[in-house]
Amino acid sequence: MSDLVGNLLVAQSGGPTCAINASLAGVILEAGKHESIEEIYGGLNGIYGILNEDLIDLNDEKQRTIDGLKYTPAAALGTCRYKIDFNKNPEKAAQDMDRLFQVFEAHNIRYFFYAGGNDSQDTSHKIHHEAIKRGYDLRVIGIPKTIDNDLPMTDHCPGYGSVVKYNATTVMEVALDVGSMATDDGACCIIEVMGRSAGWIAAGTILAKRHPNDAPHIILLPELPFDEGKFLAKVKEVVSSLKYCIVVVGEGLKNAAGEEIGADKNRLDAFGHPVLSGAAERLAELIQGKLNTKTRTVKLGYAQRAAAHFASATDIAEAVACGETAVRAAVEGKSGYMVKIVRQQDKPYKWTTDVQDLPDVANKENLIPRDWIDEQAMLPNEKFIAYAQPLVEGEVKMPVEGGLPKFVVLSKNAIEKKLPARS
Amino acid sequence: MSDLVGNLLVAQSGGPTCAINASLAGVILEAGKHESIEEIYGGLNGIYGILNEDLIDLNDEKQRTIDGLKYTPAAALGTCRYKIDFNKNPEKAAQDMDRLFQVFEAHNIRYFFYAGGNDSQDTSHKIHHEAIKRGYDLRVIGIPKTIDNDLPMTDHCPGYGSVVKYNATTVMEVALDVGSMATDDGACCIIEVMGRSAGWIAAGTILAKRHPNDAPHIILLPELPFDEGKFLAKVKEVVSSLKYCIVVVGEGLKNAAGEEIGADKNRLDAFGHPVLSGAAERLAELIQGKLNTKTRTVKLGYAQRAAAHFASATDIAEAVACGETAVRAAVEGKSGYMVKIVRQQDKPYKWTTDVQDLPDVANKENLIPRDWIDEQAMLPNEKFIAYAQPLVEGEVKMPVEGGLPKFVVLSKNAIEKKLPARS
Repeated sequence: MSDLVGNLLVAQSGGPTCAINASLAGVILEAGKHESIEEIYGGLNGIYGILNEDLIDLNDEKQRTIDGLKYTPAAALGTCRYKIDFNKNPEKAAQDMDRLFQVFEAHNIRYFFYAGGNDSQDTSHKIHHEAIKRGYDLRVIGIPKTIDNDLPMTDHCPGYGSVVKYNATTVMEVALDVGSMATDDGACCIIEVMGRSAGWIAAGTILAKRHPNDAPHIILLPELPFDEGKFLAKVKEVVSSLKYCIVVVGEGLKNAAGEEIGADKNRLDAFGHPVLSGAAERLAELIQGKLNTKTRTVKLGYAQRAAAHFASATDIAEAVACGETAVRAAVEGKSGYMVKIVRQQDKPYKWTTDVQDLPDVANKENLIPRDWIDEQAMLPNEKFIAYAQPLVEGEVKMPVEGGLPKFVVLSKNAIEKKLPARS
Repeated sequence: MSDLVGNLLVAQSGGPTCAINASLAGVILEAGKHESIEEIYGGLNGIYGILNEDLIDLNDEKQRTIDGLKYTPAAALGTCRYKIDFNKNPEKAAQDMDRLFQVFEAHNIRYFFYAGGNDSQDTSHKIHHEAIKRGYDLRVIGIPKTIDNDLPMTDHCPGYGSVVKYNATTVMEVALDVGSMATDDGACCIIEVMGRSAGWIAAGTILAKRHPNDAPHIILLPELPFDEGKFLAKVKEVVSSLKYCIVVVGEGLKNAAGEEIGADKNRLDAFGHPVLSGAAERLAELIQGKLNTKTRTVKLGYAQRAAAHFASATDIAEAVACGETAVRAAVEGKSGYMVKIVRQQDKPYKWTTDVQDLPDVANKENLIPRDWIDEQAMLPNEKFIAYAQPLVEGEVKMPVEGGLPKFVVLSKNAIEKKLPARS
């Protein structure tokens, strides 16, 4: 039993995934096992809601609901993009920090868990240090979460395996569709996936390629500057050989000048704003304009990170374990760490969890190792495949009602506010 | 046993679905039971390939492959948009018809099954009449197939239930995602789905709405002219009440002048072609420009009609039955019909199959009955829901390998050509 007795607060931050609620379930289920943890509170909309003292009682939720979190996408507690930014606005950041610790004290919060990506780990790190500075006894553990898979030190991030499973499946399905329609005129399809600076998501679709002629035929990663000539030559080659070509592009694909190709500042919409047609639309224009090959686009957008209906069982199990590990580490007396996933071996895949100092993680971005990419072939290579394959394995048995998913919604019983409203 | 002994030819036409191969499996499995059917041939790429005498031996495929067709999206035989068009080019159409019957005679084709939408049923009808005119003993049966669900006389079309199941699920998932990120600024997401003139697909997403506040909050159907003022007022109302708004739009949404809003002929791309930014992008521009609410888009494109990984078991079972019924009808001596699905009751859902004269079906388009739409609420009403709900029920147990679908590919062993190449 921990020497520190008090209440637990867990919150979610950044872009949602279909596994972030599984980590929340892990936190709640593990917390219930430790006597030193008295109440289990959830903070609504991350730091943004906690500053407003928007806390809910997670012990008040039904067991069935907690279990259902493992199958429910998006952030059940709500999320935010709010940052306590001492560089940008030190005065406001100091006020926020004061308010945060007022909320912690008012509700005797002694365990704080924050699930999120790079920014959120930075927030956890700052809160950990502030607690030490103030002499306020608090255990802070960050829980990794990001489909972008760009957190360092962890083998991969919860949420990533599921987005790869769904996107690679979509590539397989769309490829069969386009291939079956292709006659001598040829046909292309561009599938735009998420990933502004890291290409992990786009690269993951390589798993759809079981045979050399299978899609994807080209994967354009935001890490590598777009080379129009090389791209068009490759499309032409694939179409003349297979009659169709499937291209996957990360939304943040940039030209040699570092400008996103999907954002055209010279083209204005009816309201005078630059048109953000997206990378896929621009590539389709290019192929149709220069090669005269019929080209269609798919833009999965938010659908890809919310696709709980075909989540990876490995991903969900790891996400639950990350939540559990966070609680266990805190109860053991640790603070100022992020939970990480450690790969023990590839085949058969074995993993465990551990913790890593937050300064090693916060505000750092982990890109695909360059030697995992075959730049000539415009595809990730076997090193990447060995890495990504285990992460999509296993299917989640999602509850269904009337043919559609049965997701859970927290009843969100509010904890009575003890502070005056935020000024 | 049928009095007509000979070979069977089956082919697929038009845009693929994730159920059209299930009908192919139904044809093959049923054909194997009838002694009057000697060989089972597949025509590659529909009429287009048959004119080139591109036939394959379906008896040569493994049993496992035939069974796997039930779970494999797209057209396993390949498809086409080729039409024998006597109005447009009577001379070429007559040549095509001659060639087609040369192929039929050369391979002793006595049973012809064509799976497709409106155009394909018209083709089947023409072939049936041509056979009578020529005194060539042939049984022609059309098999319905279209995600658009716009074939008349059949209660619905194979392929439709699965696209609705996938799209409604996507709406539920995206809604949780957007809702969980929404703070006081509000957020919108526009999900663009297929449907150029009929709104069946867009309307189907209403099934995601289990509670009054659930998404979709607005469904824009191509049948109803887009009313910008009414639309923006509704978005504003929903955002101020729920902080977020999910809009589903059929790609063919038109303004009062009948022009598609996604096609802007006044805006040219770098190659001088009109920009087809799509309905969702135009609506997003509008909301951001006029309401200043952050808006993202999802364009499912081909992914929605190929999504075998979450197909409707009801849809797949019906598609198989349509193939089986086609063969049984032909063996019984029928020709010049399309198979149709007949709804016997809603709750519990009961259905059967029957056949309908092709002239009742060919080149006719079935739109949503106007009294199934609540124009004020901008949503389909309970009549539509009672119709659509049973079609998404049941989950298909798709085989998986390494966490991704295990689809089948026909080995396509070619039948030796007996005719000179097409001139």
